[in-house]
Formats: sequence, C-alpha cells, structure tokens
Amino acid sequence: MIGHSLSAVRIGIETPNEAHVFMHRDCHVCRAEGFTSRTSVIVTYGARSVIATLFPVTSEIIKPMEAGLSEWAWQELGLVPGARVTVTHALPLDSLSAIRGKVYGNRLDSISLERVIRDVAAGRYAGIHLSAFLTACAARPLDFDEMRELTRAMIDVGRRLHWPVPKVMDKHCVGGLPGNRTTPIVVAIAAACGLTIPKTTSRAITSPAGTADTMETLAPVDLSIDAMRRVVDGEGGCVVWGGAVQLSPADDILIRAERVLDLDGEGQMVASILSKKLAAGATHLVIDLPVGPTAKVRSFEAAQRLAQSVVDVGRAFGLVVKPILSDGTQPVGSGIGPALEARDVLAVLQGGPLAPADLRDHALAIAAGLLELGGAARDGEGRQIAAECLRNGQAWAKFQKICAAQGGLREPPTAKYTRTAEMRAAGAIDRIDCRRLSRIAKLAGAPDAKAAGLQLHVRLGMPVSRGQPAFTVHAESPGELDYALAYIEANPDIIGILHP
Amino acid sequence: MIGHSLSAVRIGIETPNEAHVFMHRDCHVCRAEGFTSRTSVIVTYGARSVIATLFPVTSEIIKPMEAGLSEWAWQELGLVPGARVTVTHALPLDSLSAIRGKVYGNRLDSISLERVIRDVAAGRYAGIHLSAFLTACAARPLDFDEMRELTRAMIDVGRRLHWPVPKVMDKHCVGGLPGNRTTPIVVAIAAACGLTIPKTTSRAITSPAGTADTMETLAPVDLSIDAMRRVVDGEGGCVVWGGAVQLSPADDILIRAERVLDLDGEGQMVASILSKKLAAGATHLVIDLPVGPTAKVRSFEAAQRLAQSVVDVGRAFGLVVKPILSDGTQPVGSGIGPALEARDVLAVLQGGPLAPADLRDHALAIAAGLLELGGAARDGEGRQIAAECLRNGQAWAKFQKICAAQGGLREPPTAKYTRTAEMRAAGAIDRIDCRRLSRIAKLAGAPDAKAAGLQLHVRLGMPVSRGQPAFTVHAESPGELDYALAYIEANPDIIGILHP
Repeated sequence: MIGHSLSAVRIGIETPNEAHVFMHRDCHVCRAEGFTSRTSVIVTYGARSVIATLFPVTSEIIKPMEAGLSEWAWQELGLVPGARVTVTHALPLDSLSAIRGKVYGNRLDSISLERVIRDVAAGRYAGIHLSAFLTACAARPLDFDEMRELTRAMIDVGRRLHWPVPKVMDKHCVGGLPGNRTTPIVVAIAAACGLTIPKTTSRAITSPAGTADTMETLAPVDLSIDAMRRVVDGEGGCVVWGGAVQLSPADDILIRAERVLDLDGEGQMVASILSKKLAAGATHLVIDLPVGPTAKVRSFEAAQRLAQSVVDVGRAFGLVVKPILSDGTQPVGSGIGPALEARDVLAVLQGGPLAPADLRDHALAIAAGLLELGGAARDGEGRQIAAECLRNGQAWAKFQKICAAQGGLREPPTAKYTRTAEMRAAGAIDRIDCRRLSRIAKLAGAPDAKAAGLQLHVRLGMPVSRGQPAFTVHAESPGELDYALAYIEANPDIIGILHP
Repeated sequence: MIGHSLSAVRIGIETPNEAHVFMHRDCHVCRAEGFTSRTSVIVTYGARSVIATLFPVTSEIIKPMEAGLSEWAWQELGLVPGARVTVTHALPLDSLSAIRGKVYGNRLDSISLERVIRDVAAGRYAGIHLSAFLTACAARPLDFDEMRELTRAMIDVGRRLHWPVPKVMDKHCVGGLPGNRTTPIVVAIAAACGLTIPKTTSRAITSPAGTADTMETLAPVDLSIDAMRRVVDGEGGCVVWGGAVQLSPADDILIRAERVLDLDGEGQMVASILSKKLAAGATHLVIDLPVGPTAKVRSFEAAQRLAQSVVDVGRAFGLVVKPILSDGTQPVGSGIGPALEARDVLAVLQGGPLAPADLRDHALAIAAGLLELGGAARDGEGRQIAAECLRNGQAWAKFQKICAAQGGLREPPTAKYTRTAEMRAAGAIDRIDCRRLSRIAKLAGAPDAKAAGLQLHVRLGMPVSRGQPAFTVHAESPGELDYALAYIEANPDIIGILHP
C-alpha cells in the first residue's frame, strides 16, 4: 500500500502493550487514507513496524504532517527525535475468521491457532479481539488436540531456553490466593538439594504482588538470559523476572485480557501454563492448585479436571507433571504485598519462631514433589528431606547465594504509614474474602509501592474478641492509606464471623 | 469515594463513544489513587459524570493537577474552559459476572440482562467487555426468553416514541448489501398511500453509506424529535437520522463492537432490530432479509430461522412483523456511496428510463408488504398499488414534500475525480464480491466524502467483452482516487467471470 512520510513526535502518553498514534485531523495523510478514530494502522520506521490504533487530534498538540507516538510505540520502534515514519492501513485480521468459526462450533485446527497466536504476539489484536478469542475458547471448551496445538503455537512465537542437564525442574501455582509466595523457598530447597531450577516469574497484573515483585525487594530480578544462565550454572537455581526473556509472549497478552474479564477457560489456562514452562526449558513440573471459593479454582472437581488436562497435554510434549491440590480458602502467610510477603519468606527460610506455619507447610509440600520428581528423594521421603534442608540452614544459605549471584541480597522496605483494622464483633472466623483483601492491599499502593499491603492477624476457625486486631494496612503515603481505609469502612464483611 | 479537584483541559483527541482522560504521571491524584494506564475512572463535573479510561502522560502536554479530556468526554460533560472536575475510581463491573455465567452455560435472566445493558448504555463497558458479551451470546445462543428480555432491557435504557395513530409502520433491512437504498422510496410510497411511517435511519459505521448518509445528500436529516413530529404530522412520513433521538442507545454501542468483530449472533440481531423499532413506536414492521454469500445472512435456512425469531419475539411486544427474503447475491442499484445511491433513488422516484430495475423491484416488494400490513391494500394487491403510486408521480410528489418539510430538497453532489475500471477478460459475470466493492467505495472516501463511491456497470449473468466498463470509481480528491485504484489493482478478482 501507499506510504506517507511524517515527522515522529514523542507525545509521552503511556499505553503499555499497545501502540497509539495521534495525527491531526487536517493532515492530508489522514484524509487521503480515510483514517478515522480507531483505524488500525501500521507505523513503520526503517526496518521496524508496529500495529497502532489511530486517534485524530483537533488541537495544536499535534501539527499536520506529524505523527504523535505513545511511549510504547516510541520504544518498540526504537525512534529518535526527528525520525520520519510512514503510516498505512493495517491489513485485515484474517485470523478472526477462525475465531468466528469457533464461536459457531467449529474446531480450531493447528494452522488457525498458529495464525491467531501469531497475530496476538505481534500486537495485532486489540482488547475487543482478544476478548472474542478468550470468550469463544471458554464458551466452546477446547478439546485435547486444540489444547495441545494452542500450547505449541504459543511456544513457537517466543524464545525457548535449553539447559545442559537432563532434568530441569519448575513449579507453577494456579493463582488467586494472596500471600502464596512459596517460590523463593521452594527454589532454595530444590537447588540446595542439587536440582536445577531456573525459575522465571511474573510481576503482578491485577494482584497486589507477583513473585517477581516480592523477590525484587530481596534481590535484583531484572536479569538478561546470559546473567540468568550464570546464576543457574553457579547455584543450580534462580528467581528472576521472566518478562525480559520473551517466553511465550502471546501468553502475557492473553493473560492481561483474561484478568480484565476475570475469565479463565480451562484450555486457555492449560496452554498458558505449559507454554511458559516448556519455553523455559522445563522437563519436570510441580503444579500447585489452591482450591477455595475466592481462589482461581473453586472446587476440587474443577481442580482435578484441570490437573488431568495439564498432565495429559504436558505428556504430549514430554513434560512430567505432578499436580498438588491445596487449601485455598484463606491467604497463605500473613503478608500481602511485595515487602510484606518477602518478610514471610525470610522468616520461613531463617526458621524464626514467628514464621507462618501455613506458608512453610505449603512450600514443603511443593518442594517435596520436586525432590521426588527430580530424583533427589525417594517417593514418600521428599517432605522429610525438604524439612531437614530448611531446618539445618542449607536452604537459607542457598537462598543467600542465589541473591548474591543475582546482584546482592537486600532488606525489604518498611511502610511509613500503618493502621490496624479491628474485629467488630466476637466469635469464630468463618470466612476470609481473599479478593477484597487483595483490593485493600492494592488501594494501599501495592505492588508499585513495594512496602504497601497488609498483614493479616487472623486465620479461619480462630476465636476472636471484639476490638482484636484483624489486619494492619501498610502504605507509603497518607493518601493511599486513607483510600484503603475508606474501602474497609465500606466493606465491613470482608472477614466473616460465626457468632458464638 | 474520595474525589480530587483538577483543572479540565480540552486536549482535542477524538475518541467517539468513549471517554479518555489524560493525567500527568507525577500528579499526586494519580499516585494517591493508584491510577495506572487504562484504569477505569469516573470524571465528574457538577451533576454530570462519565466513565473514562485513564492514560498517564509523561510529557508537558498535561501538567500535574490537570485532567486532559478527549472530545467526546468534553462534550458529554458539557465542560467549559477552566472548569474543575473530580476523578475517582470507577466501581467494579458487577454485571460481568452474569456474562461469565453465560460463558459457562447458565441462562441470562431479566435482571442480569438489565444490569448488563444499563452498564453498556452508560459507557461502562470497554471493547474487551462488549466483545465478551457478544461472543458469549453467539457461542451460547440466546433462547426465546433471553431474546425477549434482552429486547426489553435495550428498549428500557433509551427513549420511547409514541404516535397518536393506531398503526405505525416501519421497515428494516438486515444489511450487508451495498446500494440497497430502498428506504426513501418505500417511505414515499407508504406515506403517499396514507400510512404513518416515522422512519429513523442510521449513518454508516463500517459500510460506504448508511440511509441517513444517503438521505442527507437530498435533505437535512439531523432533526430534533419535535421537528421530526412536525414532518410526520404534516406528511405522514419522514427519513431522519436516529442518532439524536436516543432510541435503544445500547444497541448503537453493541453494533459498533459487532462490526469490528464481524460477529452477528442471532439473538443479538433480533434484540437489536426489535428494540430500535419498538422504541421508535412501530406497531407494524416489514423486515427485508437479503440472502447471499457476501451479505449478512448467507443461507435461506439462516434467513428463515432469523425471520421466525423476529416474528415470535416481536409478537411478545404486540408488534406485527412481516419478513421478506430477497436476493442478496449482488449490489442493488448501480451506485455505492451516499450521493451515488441518492441518484439511484431519485431515478426510481422520477421514473426515469435509466432507473435501476432491481432497486425499483425491491422497493416495490417492501412497499407492498407495508401497504398490506397497514391496511392500505388488500392482501396480494400491495404491489400493484405501490407500482401505480410510483408511476403516477404521487410517490415523487410526496418525497419532495417530505424533503421540503425536513428543511428543503437538494441536489446530491458530484465527484471531481472519476476513473473507470474495465473488464480484464470476456465471458459472463458469475460473481460480484459485495464486501470488496464496499471497500473500494470507502477507500475512495465514502461516506465522509459524500460524492465518493462507485457506480457498477455490470450485473450477474451479463455477458461482457474485454475492456468493457466494469465500474467507475468516484472520489473528491486525487489521493483517495489513487488509493482506491491501488486496491483495485491488487484485487483483480472482485468481479468473477465464467469464461465462454
């Protein structure tokens, strides 16, 4: 198609994972090309190009013959001030026809899935298209072949890591449970016991903390692949942020849309988990499935079905998967938020008297699975070996070495502003709403404010008296603290009580 | 929730039907409220408020403590320079849980549908949410009760017109066929025969012309409800733009998303058609269903099923519906684009020798249905009476009076730049791709450039020789003409030939 050269302007608008381009309504390119609001266009700079959504502008922030690029577009294109770009119509999204077919009951074959995932990874799908794909795959559940081919397509659009050992261990938690920060503990135990566990983790998208956010309060996590390799070569394990590594990039985009919709189709979840782990080079995987009314998986039947699909589809790729179903009825540990969760992790690793017993138990169960899968323990003996490794300080020593190799162990920050919410009545705790606790932690500033979040002082079944501390909110600014407190005030039923 | 006063800035970015707000990343409100990119917020100015998508800005186009509003937001809020607005978190979209239920196979009840449609009409759904609703309703087809309740919910969120006559006629075409501009002809005949037909029409969303765009080249269409009433009181009929009237506003928003996805669930289509007509006060409706491989309805079976649903659901609201299945294998008339279609309409109304016979036939079939439904003709005699009304000039006289009452009949504009595409081989025409012809008309500038579009010189089955004119592109600028010609060059198979 015909191109038109325009002067690139850095307009400074933040549109993560999506390019926006702003052009003056009176620009002759807009007129000649028939660009209107939300036209999908291709912006090209030299050999690079990006799909962008166009917005016409009528004010002087953009002049005719200029193209204002959002931050994400500017960086994707590697632009410099004064650069010339061309803007042309984007091609129609042919892969949408496969999604329409799925909506009306056709199966998705491997070629269709490849096309869809290629378009997703290239950023050609707007939210409206991503949502159609995710909703169709949830309403018309994927069969085994579709799950396998979706997994394959998602692996193929990204990088794939290879490790020079026969067994590469990994773990995954099907989320939804705040505070469930077992990964640093599990990696330390597994690596201390001689296994190879190159762990890539993610940052929070809608939760108050991702494992990468928590780990970052203890050591740098933003490592290149080469730096990650050096850590794993030296220590057997690492806990780094996977974002820079470009493993299954379509998954990141799909997950973001899934969370907006709060929609997790089983097939989508299976492909998401397996594509990330297979791309990271895993051969053996323990998958943790917390089950609870406000967790991602809400019934044991659903957990068993999901676990079976992960095992079956994993097997098609030579991956050995061990599922562990766990209690997801309340948060794990006491902290919710990056630094507060990091303190729980440190307490467990250091074996302190105040270490949350549930986090320790849960981490041991997962570590046991890994030790048995990886051949570092006989079946049935994993837990004992893992517990000994924690007790004798080997796990803590290994964790310190891993942090040093990643750039240096550091102290998690503490919050300047705290306020404790009290129980409003006496009785026994019979319900803890994980979703709304997460919301409080986020309103208090987590995960961007690393020290923000909350500390939970009660557990299910615990008898409480009126006025007893329920949880303490931590914030880095008074405004954020107020905001969280206003939400608590408006939601008196987050912690449910059975009256005596 | 807590509000913060900011200075409103008119940033001049066009985001039709969706509010965007731009705030500086360093603004303390952004920090305190935890606003990040795409946070859904409520912007309030006095008694008015609007749901908006927030984008942080790092450049000086917005200062801290300013809120830059997109054009649509500025107008919705009725802002004036220097106004103070507050920006707070939007409430979570509780109605999404009903959509999740539908995805997993539950029925949508009337309360859920009311909540969804209220959120849609209030602009609380982004594209990603709209798409989930539309995809779920297509993948898990709506049953009769769901269609009825969806229709009711869509009527209830908008205005509803009432007319002081027992029979209020309306027509609707299930689109997809370029040039099918029967409405002005049908309204003229029906009104000339004494029926009441207060016709509201729409502008093009993705097509080269909507009926409102075509009619606007002949008379003003942007009438208030009061002005529309005066035209109908005096002349029995009108052809106005329905956009200002706020009938079934959720439908406009859903249709826009449907077209992006090219997805038409049957239930959605039924509710869309009926909610608009019932809100406009219709009691009797003729529905035109063109069937063809590139039309919206692609098989007679699908057309019959859709027709039956419209009849059944219509009956639940006391609406009498008569479906007419028609030939949708090629464009109707010769013009595609506002002014070119208007010329076809005039030719039929004036009875000229060059009037397209297919457009005349099709309009007569629909008019006949209306005359019989409305009691202006006995069953089986509608067509004869309609044809006579055209022949004796009464329809043309009525049309001129309607145009005069709407603000004055005018001459459609003509294009400055034209180019004729020729047949590349001899044979018989056996396929005409309506979708790609529409695309050419749009590349040439339609519907914004009123004179732009194309004129088709061939019909299915017609024998042609090499070099014979196939169609003529009309454009208002040389750039747009070139753009359409480049597309024609790249798509030599838009008109298919059966070689002799």
